[in-house]
Amino acid sequence: MRIGGHSVWLKCECLQTGGAFKLRGATNRLLQLNQAERAQGVVAFSSGNHAQGVAIAARRLGIAATIVMPSDAPALKIAGTRAEGAAIVFYERLSEDRSAIAARIAEATGATVVPSFDDPHIVAGQGTVGLEIIDQLGRSPQRIVVPCGGGGLAAGIALACPDAELVIVEPAGWDDMKRSLDGGAIVAVAADAPPTLCDALQTPLVSPITFDVLAARGVTAVTVNEAETEAAVRWAWRDQALVVEPGGAVALAALLAGTIDPAPDTVVVLSGGNIDSALHHRIVGGG
Amino acid sequence: MRIGGHSVWLKCECLQTGGAFKLRGATNRLLQLNQAERAQGVVAFSSGNHAQGVAIAARRLGIAATIVMPSDAPALKIAGTRAEGAAIVFYERLSEDRSAIAARIAEATGATVVPSFDDPHIVAGQGTVGLEIIDQLGRSPQRIVVPCGGGGLAAGIALACPDAELVIVEPAGWDDMKRSLDGGAIVAVAADAPPTLCDALQTPLVSPITFDVLAARGVTAVTVNEAETEAAVRWAWRDQALVVEPGGAVALAALLAGTIDPAPDTVVVLSGGNIDSALHHRIVGGG
Repeated sequence: MRIGGHSVWLKCECLQTGGAFKLRGATNRLLQLNQAERAQGVVAFSSGNHAQGVAIAARRLGIAATIVMPSDAPALKIAGTRAEGAAIVFYERLSEDRSAIAARIAEATGATVVPSFDDPHIVAGQGTVGLEIIDQLGRSPQRIVVPCGGGGLAAGIALACPDAELVIVEPAGWDDMKRSLDGGAIVAVAADAPPTLCDALQTPLVSPITFDVLAARGVTAVTVNEAETEAAVRWAWRDQALVVEPGGAVALAALLAGTIDPAPDTVVVLSGGNIDSALHHRIVGGG
Repeated sequence: MRIGGHSVWLKCECLQTGGAFKLRGATNRLLQLNQAERAQGVVAFSSGNHAQGVAIAARRLGIAATIVMPSDAPALKIAGTRAEGAAIVFYERLSEDRSAIAARIAEATGATVVPSFDDPHIVAGQGTVGLEIIDQLGRSPQRIVVPCGGGGLAAGIALACPDAELVIVEPAGWDDMKRSLDGGAIVAVAADAPPTLCDALQTPLVSPITFDVLAARGVTAVTVNEAETEAAVRWAWRDQALVVEPGGAVALAALLAGTIDPAPDTVVVLSGGNIDSALHHRIVGGG
């Protein structure tokens, strides 16, 4: 596609099986389990994309999966996870600790916890997005722009694409990776972080694994606001025939808003497309 | 994707450059021109997808293009054609003969007419969809279901995929290929054919080239109504994160409506995604 007179490439993980890149890391993590571990199942917590990724990978490998999801997760992501045969346990996003719930389930059942980004095998699996970018272009691009929640995708791409400049994009107020990188140490999202449509990027705290990779790389980090994200969702739909969820559209939003210069040879990752139809209909009808 | 418990593959030409498969045939046809012919330019008539395909192929090859388009063509297709640098001449769909207009332009300028389907090089170019289906699956599917207007895409796939059963789908009332195949001779669309959202499939008369290929192959032909087509556009958006135009969605519509059994190993071609945003917003908001 073209932005501001420059050619920009879209890596469309919104078209991936499960509607996001998450199947990659989940598959790689589950493949590390031995037979005894496989027999005891896996448990994961996620607002939806990682949930579906783990559920699909588990079904394919014949492993039982339990997913801890926030009660306000998009209905499409809940339905998609359930359709893959996973058991779902709901929690309240604002009052309950999802990792503690997952840990309790793991303790009670012997299941292995599959984190959404704080795991080297997960990061390596997400990095296959970067390997594919190089394979599909036939070369390394000059720049890759990536949505960032916990940083698993960004860190994986950083490792897979050593010759590209990496730019990460977060929603305003949820820019804990940016502030962590700026300050040289991990800081959490503020308690009064604003609501955002980017449910996939509402990660309260990044992990040392992803932070260290991105800090060592010297990535650039920027933010986009909700209106810019909605404009990107609308643009992808109208001009590119793609349905992208808000959290999957923030990298595109930063380019369309002019926050990132489209001049260098750039690949933009559209990291997910799982959006409730009513919300998508509302967003594309606006503006 | 899964329909009725069966896995079905989507060949997403809605994601093709130009938003439809048409670039394939146009490129192959223009590559046949010698230097003298290239210098005199090309002229084509089309409601939009072929227009954009010819315009893009011509720009890439440095050939001047004039496109004869109906005045009621989707605004997105008109804008897309113009953005590729082509000159546009409008005609009235119900009162003027677009092929005569194109012939006059060709006579006056020496330009070569690039038909949208009545040409062996066009058919061969569209057939690369079939070659890619086999390449991407790693085998021939049992069945391929294809939208049919003039039959260029269907005939091309028929030639490229000799081991697959071929099913063509037309909008109700615009089923001239089906009636031609049933009767063993080409018949035109009835003068009182109903309005349809499938502008890409509003071909008044198929050609001997495409008819002969499909008749010799013994294809199955079915129709879908407007409500079934709209339901398919909605389903592709909600469940597959894809924007598909009505004419590009008729093959999918036939499967979703139960007109075609999804049980055999089936590939469905989504042939185009160029739909005005207001119409798409209206369709996906209904039902």
